[in-house]
Amino acid sequence: MNELRRPDARPLYVQVEAILNERIVSGEWKSGQAIPAEPELAAELGVSAGTLRRALARLEQRHLIERRQGRGTYVSQQTSQQALGLFFRVRNFAGKPVRPESFITGVTTGPATPEEAARLRLSPGEAVHRIDRRRHLEGEPRIAERIALPAALFPGLSLPLAPKQLGAEIYVHYRNAHGIIVVSAEEDLSAASATEEEAALLGCPVGAPLLLIERVTFDAAGRPVELRVSRLDTRAHRYAVEIV
Amino acid sequence: MNELRRPDARPLYVQVEAILNERIVSGEWKSGQAIPAEPELAAELGVSAGTLRRALARLEQRHLIERRQGRGTYVSQQTSQQALGLFFRVRNFAGKPVRPESFITGVTTGPATPEEAARLRLSPGEAVHRIDRRRHLEGEPRIAERIALPAALFPGLSLPLAPKQLGAEIYVHYRNAHGIIVVSAEEDLSAASATEEEAALLGCPVGAPLLLIERVTFDAAGRPVELRVSRLDTRAHRYAVEIV
Repeated sequence: MNELRRPDARPLYVQVEAILNERIVSGEWKSGQAIPAEPELAAELGVSAGTLRRALARLEQRHLIERRQGRGTYVSQQTSQQALGLFFRVRNFAGKPVRPESFITGVTTGPATPEEAARLRLSPGEAVHRIDRRRHLEGEPRIAERIALPAALFPGLSLPLAPKQLGAEIYVHYRNAHGIIVVSAEEDLSAASATEEEAALLGCPVGAPLLLIERVTFDAAGRPVELRVSRLDTRAHRYAVEIV
Repeated sequence: MNELRRPDARPLYVQVEAILNERIVSGEWKSGQAIPAEPELAAELGVSAGTLRRALARLEQRHLIERRQGRGTYVSQQTSQQALGLFFRVRNFAGKPVRPESFITGVTTGPATPEEAARLRLSPGEAVHRIDRRRHLEGEPRIAERIALPAALFPGLSLPLAPKQLGAEIYVHYRNAHGIIVVSAEEDLSAASATEEEAALLGCPVGAPLLLIERVTFDAAGRPVELRVSRLDTRAHRYAVEIV
């Protein structure tokens, strides 16, 4: 109960949600682990069963915990395999999914551009973190990528820097370090010519056609949490879409 | 019964299916219309209730007819609006879906290329029809497109030719004139440079980056019925993907 401090203008169930969120984000409650039974937890926090249940419902709605029929409530897992399967649509010419290797080439923080602000629904000039990555497919550099994240959602962003590999694990990092679970995305696809910088990064001629993928990623509340702009060299790969 | 002729090596229910298919394709049974009750139809064709039901099940599986609970069996409709909503993913910069206008620039028949044969699962050299189209978005030529169709599935292909407009209605034409209903597609996206011919057609510079969309379209039986290669000028439009 020492965590529930007055004065705090927020409703009690929101404060409880924040406390439990922190336990998940900090790793005190680990991925895949069962959380304490509700009566025990309510007693520990000194809140009513109703308040606790409301806080848990919000965590469940954010996909941070999941209830399993008759077996209790568990901290959700988000594995890199799940994230890759959902979000990474690149195939080689044999139609096989490929697993990217990612190398971070820079991390900076600065005011959002008008484009970033619009896509991430930020006020003009709000701070964003930018992560630049080069991604390899089947051993060759094929993707030049910039990820922009609202700094308010990713306080003290800390990432293992280059040359450490970091692939779809970045979504696992959002979850483990910042409590943000990505559940959906909208992508706009177009074609663009490689700039000098992109050509150097990807080993292609200046002006070579690249597949430009602009992705906005959303959490369970429908809040945009990431803008990701990727340039894919399609000399040996395709972006696959299934329409059913 | 005069339609059921011997010798015909095919099982009786397949022959019945072909007869009923012909009634739909010829327009004798129109889109959205109820078909005769089963006992009446079985008597007319001189087949058992079981044989008729097996034929109807196959037509239903091909989405040519649909059963409505307690109201009978109807010839399915496929409107251009449905086909557009499912298959046309292009948006303008405001995020609004756009409706293409299509102009056929050529129709030819010839042996399949190795690429066409592979994608359409044809034997090398089997005949395909090829339809070339120029498609306009919001008044400007934006898409250069070639459609390849197995000639065996589209006998005597007849299309209203240029300059008549023909948009997503082409899928309605497949259904109405050939009994082929498209239900799913796989697309491979990449980037390509405009050739001289494409540049002239689209009014863009030679070498301009184009979004290349290679679509294989399938019927309800999972059979590839169309290979469509589209080149989209993305100066004012995007191809939208939702990931959920």
